[in-house]
Amino acid sequence: MSQTQRYKLTIAYRGTAYHGWQKQFANEFYKGPPPTGGLEGIPTIQELLTIAIRGVVNHPINLVGSSRTDAGVHAKGQVAHFDTHMTQIPPFGMQRAINARLPDDIDVRSIEPVPDTFDAILSTVSKRYHYLIWNDFRKPVHSPDLAWHWFHKLDIPAMQAAALHLTGTHDFASFAKAGHGRESTVRTVYSLDISHRSPRIVFGIEGSGFLWNMVRIIVGTLVQVGMGRYTPDDIRHMREQHDRNAAGNTAPAHGLYLQWIRHELGVANAPFADTNE
Amino acid sequence: MSQTQRYKLTIAYRGTAYHGWQKQFANEFYKGPPPTGGLEGIPTIQELLTIAIRGVVNHPINLVGSSRTDAGVHAKGQVAHFDTHMTQIPPFGMQRAINARLPDDIDVRSIEPVPDTFDAILSTVSKRYHYLIWNDFRKPVHSPDLAWHWFHKLDIPAMQAAALHLTGTHDFASFAKAGHGRESTVRTVYSLDISHRSPRIVFGIEGSGFLWNMVRIIVGTLVQVGMGRYTPDDIRHMREQHDRNAAGNTAPAHGLYLQWIRHELGVANAPFADTNE
Repeated sequence: MSQTQRYKLTIAYRGTAYHGWQKQFANEFYKGPPPTGGLEGIPTIQELLTIAIRGVVNHPINLVGSSRTDAGVHAKGQVAHFDTHMTQIPPFGMQRAINARLPDDIDVRSIEPVPDTFDAILSTVSKRYHYLIWNDFRKPVHSPDLAWHWFHKLDIPAMQAAALHLTGTHDFASFAKAGHGRESTVRTVYSLDISHRSPRIVFGIEGSGFLWNMVRIIVGTLVQVGMGRYTPDDIRHMREQHDRNAAGNTAPAHGLYLQWIRHELGVANAPFADTNE
Repeated sequence: MSQTQRYKLTIAYRGTAYHGWQKQFANEFYKGPPPTGGLEGIPTIQELLTIAIRGVVNHPINLVGSSRTDAGVHAKGQVAHFDTHMTQIPPFGMQRAINARLPDDIDVRSIEPVPDTFDAILSTVSKRYHYLIWNDFRKPVHSPDLAWHWFHKLDIPAMQAAALHLTGTHDFASFAKAGHGRESTVRTVYSLDISHRSPRIVFGIEGSGFLWNMVRIIVGTLVQVGMGRYTPDDIRHMREQHDRNAAGNTAPAHGLYLQWIRHELGVANAPFADTNE
């Protein structure tokens, strides 16, 4: 009866009020100062979820999240796992009990038992992020924290042409924040599509894994293409420099959404199984 | 050169962080305790707008708003007016300068010069409110403050049938919060439509004017119809009682949006020109 069961959680949250999924400076790879300084005392999503789950299963747990989303970043499909011997609670009942202990801006969307070979980080095979821009003269007053407000008109065909240089398997070192701590900066971007339905512009990006701030640097740089500061061809050149200083600005956190994460049971893709953004 | 010009403003805001358009207990009609107590020190939208406008026109102003929206209520088209002798600033420049002094969740959508006969309160001829319900088992994590989350399935045809008893010219005393301070509780509701596109249910209500909490009491009561607690016919009976105790619950403030207000220049509709909700 002391057998443990592993559970996979899918979680949605608004990142506005939190210090990210977990405190970035507690990251074993990162040696610098807190990247989102001055937020002491603000909880992380991982902390609140851990407290809620402990309250239900009645013993300490270790909650492992797939993506360490930064402060302000939102999720529609974050994935995490934990182990428990409280296997008599049906998953749906456990989900309801955990959600009852969470604030309004965090919700467990599903819980399912998985084999021990499942690992939220190591079993990751692909991820999708969306980045939302509110492209209008008028401010998005009802959701200032849910989209990046950009006043000026953007040349979307130019951004789409530039995006083609950022799909495929490449060394994305130019699009990674320093301190990412990864041995390899090679990643595969399966698709990078930009759709426009005024006033919203949505960047959808899918890949094997992402370096720290990679989606935000890609979006910030593509917006500079949309403003005419860079040409689509400049983007290929930036990518080939393998130097963060070659690329453009970092888009702010509050437009970014972690949409979903695909896992394969028992697959450990160590080099690509990173957890940043 | 000391001639003054009246300006009409159309304003959008998220009500979450504010103590309503103005402090309700400063209302000349209302004699009771503060209706949204414990919010001392939280600014009102009127206060922040007044400070922003004063900073631009460089003299004290009196900002008159059409609707005294309660704490937590949102607006897409609130209307207000003020007078100034700083007529050399073009309206568009004034709008930009005011918006630059406002927080992200308040935005002046337009400014136009109007004759002195225009009055944001007295010239009102009709208003439209929307009430948004997020009708899903899953929480609206990205916008908990922008919709009322209702878990249970609602019988929408029953609510639509009940709504028919709340359109037309009636004494709506049963659907007004005590302390409304109005001499007449007769109002005309031109339309009350309920649309459903899962998970959203939107109540759209248009009328000559509304009593205090009238839209929220109507929505709260119709939700009880949707749950089978009342029949559509009960609603007619409630309306005929002219007694707040006869009607159902008050829906929470954070699902309510003031959509627009129509004015007619120089028309003073005193009995219907109320400013509540």
